[in-house]
Amino acid sequence: MTFEFDTHTEVQSNGDGRYAAELDPGWVVGGGVNGGYLLAVIGTALRASFPTKPDPLAVSAYYLSAGRPGPAEVAVDVRREGGSVATASVELRQQVGQGDETRIAALATYGDLDRLGDDVRTTAEEPVLPPPDECVANAFAPPEILEMAPMMGRFDMRFHPEQVGWAVGQPSGRGEISAWFRLIDGREPDPVTLLMVLDALPPVTFDLGMMGWAPTLELTAHVRAKPAPGWLKVRHATRNMAGGMFEEDCEVWDSAGRLVAQSRQLARQPRPIG
Amino acid sequence: MTFEFDTHTEVQSNGDGRYAAELDPGWVVGGGVNGGYLLAVIGTALRASFPTKPDPLAVSAYYLSAGRPGPAEVAVDVRREGGSVATASVELRQQVGQGDETRIAALATYGDLDRLGDDVRTTAEEPVLPPPDECVANAFAPPEILEMAPMMGRFDMRFHPEQVGWAVGQPSGRGEISAWFRLIDGREPDPVTLLMVLDALPPVTFDLGMMGWAPTLELTAHVRAKPAPGWLKVRHATRNMAGGMFEEDCEVWDSAGRLVAQSRQLARQPRPIG
Repeated sequence: MTFEFDTHTEVQSNGDGRYAAELDPGWVVGGGVNGGYLLAVIGTALRASFPTKPDPLAVSAYYLSAGRPGPAEVAVDVRREGGSVATASVELRQQVGQGDETRIAALATYGDLDRLGDDVRTTAEEPVLPPPDECVANAFAPPEILEMAPMMGRFDMRFHPEQVGWAVGQPSGRGEISAWFRLIDGREPDPVTLLMVLDALPPVTFDLGMMGWAPTLELTAHVRAKPAPGWLKVRHATRNMAGGMFEEDCEVWDSAGRLVAQSRQLARQPRPIG
Repeated sequence: MTFEFDTHTEVQSNGDGRYAAELDPGWVVGGGVNGGYLLAVIGTALRASFPTKPDPLAVSAYYLSAGRPGPAEVAVDVRREGGSVATASVELRQQVGQGDETRIAALATYGDLDRLGDDVRTTAEEPVLPPPDECVANAFAPPEILEMAPMMGRFDMRFHPEQVGWAVGQPSGRGEISAWFRLIDGREPDPVTLLMVLDALPPVTFDLGMMGWAPTLELTAHVRAKPAPGWLKVRHATRNMAGGMFEEDCEVWDSAGRLVAQSRQLARQPRPIG
């Protein structure tokens, strides 16, 4: 069986560290292609580059221009490989007119999560969510939202009922959104999928009553363990808005109750819509 | 008056985005030159590259090998400049034998903090510390620590008395270290200095009873505002150790009570000493 996520993130090696990808229109949200999806495309090219180190440990992406559906190239430049990890500089580019435009410049360290130690100590607290059936499904989003964000059609998301007031004009003001998450095609999560999941929820600024699109300047993802199959819990939070920017922290917890991925992004404060 | 921090982070342009630096032995700690100091050297080269965008907004550094005192080169490759921010790919390299070895590969976005909006909303809580005179000064560290970490001589640090038990074999086990901080030479903090401050405290794993050196894989710094003169408050915390790695979150607060810088790093769990 082939899952749409795998088809949409597929890359073809053109040799010399260059990979061809086809950005699918199903991942458009607001003004461009979703940044988490682009990260998963980059992550797929990196996985192909490091056969014995298939898992992202850390990925830092700087978003330079908005991606568009259509052909793209991922260029991987290995900066160090040796020992248990490998680090590469990566760019995702698209042809615009006669030239290339860089969408994302990134650095990434890959390794093998199966070969790392399994000593786990955590004081982080798993998000508390009512069962999925008692949460608010994205399937009930108004048609104008689904049209603006076709990406929503890729996911089954169940929002915490107390953190979804923004959908009806009543944001909580706390700066927190959490939800159950799975891919609509039934594909189970893996480390590269998590790169996408870290940027899949609506911007946490929705919960502060700022409903516009919030362009990411930089996002760093850490994948801490291989996720177990099943529903993921995803939590976005922000604590500090300053200078027209805010940080958004994301955590992803797997069905075994483990913190499997973390990210922080710095994004521009959205401008009010309308 | 010339401050030692400025002398130690000075760079000379060799044209074509290349800068020469001299890494000072006063910043050695454990097996190499401190990563935060190297970040400030890189930050100084970037500031020279972007005269109208002098402030780091986001810097992501991947540590590939340990820096040594002596000559180094910083190579800046501008990836995008336009509008209010500029993004560059940067490497810090040192000559080893006949070849160059990359110490740090980084990406950075620079801008002008004075030109950003000043709408601030925060729910982050300023660390609570007793007055500096009631805290534990690093000047009282045992001579063997000062010999292993000459960098300690660059700072006046005053540790929270309840978070410094690790110095006498009684770590709290909570995974938190906070301290007052200033440069010993009296130089006031600025945005590039903050890049160093974010990695100046001992690893937070000391407070978990793991006294070894914790090599950083990746560190991303966000500078959120220009710091006011005076003492800074610095807080390190970790929540999750997994797969032999831990994340260390750092916050820097200025004397006006504002969160001026944040970072997260992914580091390898230290091996026990002795």
